[in-house]
Amino acid sequence: MKLKTISGAIALLVGMTVQSTSYATDEPISAIKPPASINLGMVELGKKLYFDPRLSKSGIMSCNTCHNLSMGGTDNIPTSVGDHWQQGPINAPTVLNSSLNLAQFWDGRAADLKAQAGGPIANPGEMAFTHTLAINVLESIPAYVREFKMVFGKDKISIDQVTLAIAEFEKTLVTPNSRFDQWLLGKKDALTANEQAGYKLFKDSGCVACHNGEAVGGNSFQKMGLVEPYKGNTKGVEGRAGVTGKDADRFNFKVPTLRNVEMTYPYFHDGAANTLTEAVDVMGRLQLGKKFTQDENAKIVAFLKTLTGDQPNFTLPILPPSSDTTPRPTPFAK
Amino acid sequence: MKLKTISGAIALLVGMTVQSTSYATDEPISAIKPPASINLGMVELGKKLYFDPRLSKSGIMSCNTCHNLSMGGTDNIPTSVGDHWQQGPINAPTVLNSSLNLAQFWDGRAADLKAQAGGPIANPGEMAFTHTLAINVLESIPAYVREFKMVFGKDKISIDQVTLAIAEFEKTLVTPNSRFDQWLLGKKDALTANEQAGYKLFKDSGCVACHNGEAVGGNSFQKMGLVEPYKGNTKGVEGRAGVTGKDADRFNFKVPTLRNVEMTYPYFHDGAANTLTEAVDVMGRLQLGKKFTQDENAKIVAFLKTLTGDQPNFTLPILPPSSDTTPRPTPFAK
Repeated sequence: MKLKTISGAIALLVGMTVQSTSYATDEPISAIKPPASINLGMVELGKKLYFDPRLSKSGIMSCNTCHNLSMGGTDNIPTSVGDHWQQGPINAPTVLNSSLNLAQFWDGRAADLKAQAGGPIANPGEMAFTHTLAINVLESIPAYVREFKMVFGKDKISIDQVTLAIAEFEKTLVTPNSRFDQWLLGKKDALTANEQAGYKLFKDSGCVACHNGEAVGGNSFQKMGLVEPYKGNTKGVEGRAGVTGKDADRFNFKVPTLRNVEMTYPYFHDGAANTLTEAVDVMGRLQLGKKFTQDENAKIVAFLKTLTGDQPNFTLPILPPSSDTTPRPTPFAK
Repeated sequence: MKLKTISGAIALLVGMTVQSTSYATDEPISAIKPPASINLGMVELGKKLYFDPRLSKSGIMSCNTCHNLSMGGTDNIPTSVGDHWQQGPINAPTVLNSSLNLAQFWDGRAADLKAQAGGPIANPGEMAFTHTLAINVLESIPAYVREFKMVFGKDKISIDQVTLAIAEFEKTLVTPNSRFDQWLLGKKDALTANEQAGYKLFKDSGCVACHNGEAVGGNSFQKMGLVEPYKGNTKGVEGRAGVTGKDADRFNFKVPTLRNVEMTYPYFHDGAANTLTEAVDVMGRLQLGKKFTQDENAKIVAFLKTLTGDQPNFTLPILPPSSDTTPRPTPFAK
């Protein structure tokens, strides 16, 4: 249906008749659409904030530190490094296509991107700042004061504005035009026979039961270790149960997106799987009770690598300098 | 002389007669010229390497961590944070216009940008990696292997190629077109009367004796605390003497560039001065034996802020993903 809307719009643009059939709707995965209804002023402001390390106590950590847009929107280490080199409890999920998730964080404790964005800033194990201190910093920087006023029309900067702007920027971080999406949209030679065989296996084996939709995941919570218990790191991680309080949700996690999965290693909530081969093997056994042969595994991995889309393409933002009254970061204070 | 060459080239381009007079040559500061003779393939490769955190042991620190190109090419904290949150011994100088320095590091121990680039990678207090391990990582990433081969025509990646490419990228990080340079190049209304008065004070008071040339500094070593001894942090910092072994060079430092100085706070080798007002005051007293009045100080600061040029303008590089054989970072291993 959504695809019809797009092809409708394109047909209108080029003056063609709208076709009523859409080949892609038969597939459990749909092509990523570019974001609609974006507030550009907010995006540009949010981009600056996303890269601004002054939102951290130390002055050196920004959203981009752990969700590095040069690296598939993640940090590619099992669990992140926080303020004073604290070890994070869980793998940093990619920010790419995160607007497509049903909720944010592995346990879904944030309803949306805006709710998520405030978390790490004030988390003592991550950026270790407070919302009040972050606002004090921003309010002391004249260029920010002007830009917030231009975008929000208010005289005062608020944390709501900050997280709204960051979320608006993050909505632009979708990765359309993967080879798989080209194939979905009709370019039948976009995938090799091997990759198509991998996709067929992905569907026939049941992977697609959880990894489906536009993000190939991100739209449900599922138990890690459905058939066999997970042997990885479970210490202090309770999953969705930490949000719902229900014992049935213990070790339930949001199914991660498989978009750009070639770039978002290591895998799982604990980052314990270094390679796609390993991740596919573990998922097959633990979730599906299926031991993929080496050949099957390789085919599925080949398919997964076709999910890498166009990465965000933008100019590195130049941040306005602090003023004489800007509170200075305290990287080495406890 | 250099400016004549440029105006000659411009005159040639637009078919005008070359003028033999050049207003700017009378001034002790000259306008920044865009880099000539740049190897573009090397620049693009070097840009990726500059942003690649896989050149660090932890997998999260890149050149851009401490020389942040969103923040004036520095980290804006007194001394940098290294691997395992180690506190660095000295303020990270800006990478902007560093190609104009007579040597690199505060003590000039690296002859050029290429010699500098290898330092932090292998410094246990900074990126804490080794050159061998860095090359192992790069060699395991097929897209890097191909790009190095395209640029250098060799089958093997070497640390010389890595540092050469990073240095080539850094050569592009000049900041022409500041309001001061526009004024130097003839736009007489580019500076206010107050800013021009500040420049006159800067010259007449003797600041310009050390802060001159294209980079407004960076071209000599000078003692910190010439008239009065410096009261800031001197612990473990010997300056140029550490390189030459001469006692006369104790506490001699490379004069920092004042280009973009509004963005490169805090100031001095120990980052002890938070504001330009403070830095100008200390410099006046310690180096020139002169106590600037509040009005004089403000005028000089106003002039200094006209030295902010066009910041590097480029697309955030997208880095090639690691392969299954890439050695994984070890952020939490000692």
